[in-house]
Amino acid sequence: MMRILIAVMAAMMSLSALADEGMWTFDNPPQARLAEKYGVKLDTAWLDRVRLATVRLEGGCTGSFISAAGLILTNHHCGEECIAQNSTPDSDLVSNGFLAGTRDKELRCQEEAISVLVGTEDVTARVAAATAGLAADAVVEARRSELTKLEQACEDASAKAKGGALKCERVSLYQGGQYWLYKYKRYEDVRLVFAPERDIAAFGGDPDNFQFPRWCLDMSILRVYENGKPAKTPNRLRFDWDGADPGDAVFVSGHPGNTDRLLTVAQLELQRETFMPFWLMRFSELRGRMLQYSKTGEEPRRTAEAYLNGVENSIKVRRKQFDALLDPALLEAARKNEQTLRDAVAENPALASSAGAWDEIAAAQRVWRAILVPYTFIEGGAAFNGTLFGYARAIVRAATERAKGNESRLAEYTEARLPAVLQNLQAAAPIYPDFEVLRLSFGLERMREWLGPDDPLVRNVFGNDSPDALASKLIRDSSLADPAARVALYEGGQAAVDASQDPMIRLAAIVDPAARALRKIYEEQVEGPVQRGQEAIAKARFAVYGTSIYPDATFTLRLSDGAMMGWNEKGQDVRPWTELGRAFERATGAEPFKIPDRWLAARNRLSMATPANFTTNNDIVGGNSGSPMINAAGEIVGLAFDGNIHSISGSYWFDDRLNRSIGVHPAYIRVALEQVYDAKALLAEIDSGH
Amino acid sequence: MMRILIAVMAAMMSLSALADEGMWTFDNPPQARLAEKYGVKLDTAWLDRVRLATVRLEGGCTGSFISAAGLILTNHHCGEECIAQNSTPDSDLVSNGFLAGTRDKELRCQEEAISVLVGTEDVTARVAAATAGLAADAVVEARRSELTKLEQACEDASAKAKGGALKCERVSLYQGGQYWLYKYKRYEDVRLVFAPERDIAAFGGDPDNFQFPRWCLDMSILRVYENGKPAKTPNRLRFDWDGADPGDAVFVSGHPGNTDRLLTVAQLELQRETFMPFWLMRFSELRGRMLQYSKTGEEPRRTAEAYLNGVENSIKVRRKQFDALLDPALLEAARKNEQTLRDAVAENPALASSAGAWDEIAAAQRVWRAILVPYTFIEGGAAFNGTLFGYARAIVRAATERAKGNESRLAEYTEARLPAVLQNLQAAAPIYPDFEVLRLSFGLERMREWLGPDDPLVRNVFGNDSPDALASKLIRDSSLADPAARVALYEGGQAAVDASQDPMIRLAAIVDPAARALRKIYEEQVEGPVQRGQEAIAKARFAVYGTSIYPDATFTLRLSDGAMMGWNEKGQDVRPWTELGRAFERATGAEPFKIPDRWLAARNRLSMATPANFTTNNDIVGGNSGSPMINAAGEIVGLAFDGNIHSISGSYWFDDRLNRSIGVHPAYIRVALEQVYDAKALLAEIDSGH
Repeated sequence: MMRILIAVMAAMMSLSALADEGMWTFDNPPQARLAEKYGVKLDTAWLDRVRLATVRLEGGCTGSFISAAGLILTNHHCGEECIAQNSTPDSDLVSNGFLAGTRDKELRCQEEAISVLVGTEDVTARVAAATAGLAADAVVEARRSELTKLEQACEDASAKAKGGALKCERVSLYQGGQYWLYKYKRYEDVRLVFAPERDIAAFGGDPDNFQFPRWCLDMSILRVYENGKPAKTPNRLRFDWDGADPGDAVFVSGHPGNTDRLLTVAQLELQRETFMPFWLMRFSELRGRMLQYSKTGEEPRRTAEAYLNGVENSIKVRRKQFDALLDPALLEAARKNEQTLRDAVAENPALASSAGAWDEIAAAQRVWRAILVPYTFIEGGAAFNGTLFGYARAIVRAATERAKGNESRLAEYTEARLPAVLQNLQAAAPIYPDFEVLRLSFGLERMREWLGPDDPLVRNVFGNDSPDALASKLIRDSSLADPAARVALYEGGQAAVDASQDPMIRLAAIVDPAARALRKIYEEQVEGPVQRGQEAIAKARFAVYGTSIYPDATFTLRLSDGAMMGWNEKGQDVRPWTELGRAFERATGAEPFKIPDRWLAARNRLSMATPANFTTNNDIVGGNSGSPMINAAGEIVGLAFDGNIHSISGSYWFDDRLNRSIGVHPAYIRVALEQVYDAKALLAEIDSGH
Repeated sequence: MMRILIAVMAAMMSLSALADEGMWTFDNPPQARLAEKYGVKLDTAWLDRVRLATVRLEGGCTGSFISAAGLILTNHHCGEECIAQNSTPDSDLVSNGFLAGTRDKELRCQEEAISVLVGTEDVTARVAAATAGLAADAVVEARRSELTKLEQACEDASAKAKGGALKCERVSLYQGGQYWLYKYKRYEDVRLVFAPERDIAAFGGDPDNFQFPRWCLDMSILRVYENGKPAKTPNRLRFDWDGADPGDAVFVSGHPGNTDRLLTVAQLELQRETFMPFWLMRFSELRGRMLQYSKTGEEPRRTAEAYLNGVENSIKVRRKQFDALLDPALLEAARKNEQTLRDAVAENPALASSAGAWDEIAAAQRVWRAILVPYTFIEGGAAFNGTLFGYARAIVRAATERAKGNESRLAEYTEARLPAVLQNLQAAAPIYPDFEVLRLSFGLERMREWLGPDDPLVRNVFGNDSPDALASKLIRDSSLADPAARVALYEGGQAAVDASQDPMIRLAAIVDPAARALRKIYEEQVEGPVQRGQEAIAKARFAVYGTSIYPDATFTLRLSDGAMMGWNEKGQDVRPWTELGRAFERATGAEPFKIPDRWLAARNRLSMATPANFTTNNDIVGGNSGSPMINAAGEIVGLAFDGNIHSISGSYWFDDRLNRSIGVHPAYIRVALEQVYDAKALLAEIDSGH
């Protein structure tokens, strides 16, 4: 393992063009390699159609249009929050599944929004001009202000154009090497059309998560609406129900969330020594609390399920990332690669301004190390875990920020962002008070543990209360579970906030000065120097390696290329697909290895040889969930939902020998809709395209 | 911090005689330093009296005789399991405290045993002779067999001698550099005499744990009985109720449990990269489960409390140990020191046989890394967390082992150890089924997560059950909560085990082959090579540094020297004692900052200037809890119960500038017994000595 990793790292750094590596922007796909390896050329029409058929779920996933009437294919786990929010004690759609027989039965997703990337604009030069010659500590502020201005101008222009209003978002690629505006058509009316039972969608549950072989029907179908009608979405993808064969080229179009493949050694060390242990200890405990809470009754189980699934998934990811960071080979290789680039910089007088970048980042990491714990609890909000504090913070901060000029605001409260803030406050998502108390008391207790009972803010927040008593009071006495109350406070601005006796608002107000103080330290002494350093390194990297590299993932649209294939696991070849029959054999009748009744009843009608899940060597990470997996003809041959266990180290490097994506096979989707759920109208829409 | 640590490490390795470092065996105290620093000479009478007045609590603590009638002073947290086991839903002695007004009211501690070290014997030469010339993989077995023989001979001889039967235990010092027999007088009838309320014993609770200033009355008083009467214990310590003054010499006599100051770099890396993350994640989750369980009612809270306190304490320790291991300075220093010794070995032909030791240990660590997770779950029993499986394993293994010759048995089932096995099975400690289900289901679920659902043993153990269903069945249907049932199975031997339908016995039997297989790999490929390597390094270390060093802690009797003093915390001097009044000021009325009613009622009678807790620079670790802190005259000037936060890195090195012990001041004990608990008879016994 260690040797392979070193080899791969070296390969990556020599930018070997033959590994199926990279999350490429749509303007710069690795055409030369595609031609050489697969004999494929992706023309502009292909790229445009796939781009416009790929959607971003603002909750953190990807999907694709599969009809011209706004129908979207994504994962069950991407739709799960919506499915849970539409459930009640009497009607648990997560457990039982859901099929809207007709369009009027489709269920609104309160907190989801969907975006389609309709255009991009490189604004690197504008940003450079706005920050030229400024003192180091003024750069972050000046850049933020310029990007806010650019975003607003873009949105204002689009509102007057005939295509309709767009959301314009700043994007930093190559760690500050480039700045872009990404222009999205945004749909805020999203509805649930179909979801299978969770027991088949996530068959194998947490034990099987990130494992293969798998048999998950991890799909759900949503629809976007405009003006109360199904949206018109002519750029839609068709299915190839037969899927791919081993060796066939497969492309994944989606929104990978985050990778850290360009971090410096000092940044990796901080991840390893400070961030990861702190994170893993906190979330392991939270997992234990929620699991135990779930056992106290059917309603606690139901209300905690979606959040708990997310926590368990994150723990698995972080655990494997931590393993990668603790592998001495990773840091050794990073150190060597860093030295190679530094040596190249030292030898090239044109790059002299980049020479100090690594030390600047290292110094910033020392500051970050010192404040990471209080920052996480106070500004990061970990001390106030839960939905209601989130609302309170947004209301309190929006009041302060809206009183400022647009370009002086915190980035999340600019005019361009306020609609999303308001949408969130308006959403009629259910609040479960006992679950909120659990989360909040956990956060408060751990803040007191890590900051100490004598920390001034801790004393101020707690008074003479215990964490449990304080959390109960805050949740019980707050009116913020009511969307109308939230919106009234938001619209009342600073005066309403000052007059409010709501205890959660008062808590957010008490916390805000300390939180902002930490954020200021972070921005000036960590974020600023790191951005400057990374830009300088990016400049050097371009100069030394040319432009044949891809940027780290940033939850923006990317294309990954690869092929259907398995891998070799400790001497054993793993076959790149599974068959439905094995799921029935493997089932125990107890969760998470339980086959739903509807499937048991259908068993005799189904071909047990139906392909269920399959693997490819596409380079994807979290955020790609729900991505269409596409053949060279632009048809769907799979629905990405996971990676194998080796894929998790993809945060830091891509190991072509082991890193595999896992998708739902289209045949499995067809069989489910046709034979199990009898979804005639839905299939007719998919087949006809409208 | 980093610089200080390097300096201290260097000082340690140059064996500077002036730091108050070390956990010395009673035959080798650092007399030269004591004379030079404190003008003190500890004569044989002093050492013998203190040794015979110090007791080991087999549960993992220390105590001291404070009357000639078997009265023992120790910590509240050392007595807490006994206090909890004597509690009922109607009479919670942990919350309410306990005072036996007369001796017949003293309460039996079901699971405690107490040992006094009455003699030691160096058997290094005997062990060396028994293993001379053997092949590497036969050494562990031969050594174990020889030590079992020596133990048994020692016990047989003592049974015939007039002093009465002794327990003889093998002890390895200097990591195998020396082997000893330690001879103990063992008391198995231990009773609870006095305990304050937990709210004052552990004032500040987990948030304050390992912190200073503190105000904990962390004391309890036990008594040992022989033949149903208070034991005669003429070697008892008197109190100096005024305590020590800053700068006064203070000695701690006790049983430090474990230190790892002589580990090789490869061993430290394994701790850092494999053991710690795995441990911290598991126990953080268990903590969360138990905290949430505790909130479901008064009885869950009460029954989980003692175990939960232990888990939280361990988490705090491991967290800080992990911090120390993640500090790059620690490994850098260890690497340098290791190289220094290796260089010295390379230059000295007489030490040629030690040259390969480090590589041998490193190879063993690679094996250990590969099996640590399954070993921990299966042989370590983490998968079967709880009391009942512990009983089942002991019954199943005892049956197998008793059929073998004494010298071929696993060390914990030799004739010398069987009485302790039986005592444990006989103990009428309460079993709380819901809490047992929590622990067991947690262990099972994590085994399935880490080993995977397709692991053969996992499949075998689970069948078609979920972890919850399986744990419930096992606990509900097992008879092992009944001591009589346990003893019957134990006495029935292999036939009774084979015939038993008890599901927990069946589980232990199913698991045993896999567990023994892992143990065999561990002993042959990890423990054996490590012991050989450590012996070779110990030999080299003796040759290079002489004998002026102390062995790592092994839960055997040691003496630590130091003085009452504070330390400098980030530029602030910490005063080395606290006063009672501040506890009243700091109280919030909510746990863990709640002063018990009895103390609130007594407040006006008490001097608020009474010293409460104090610090010294003695070198102690876990296991020293409850140790008498003694002045040069041999009088008790404190009761050790904790260290400051810096003391936790004492596992790996001793930092004289920061590492401090924390004790209960004798004046606090006096005021409590006299003014708050009105413990007249008890004080009379302590004052008169009988």
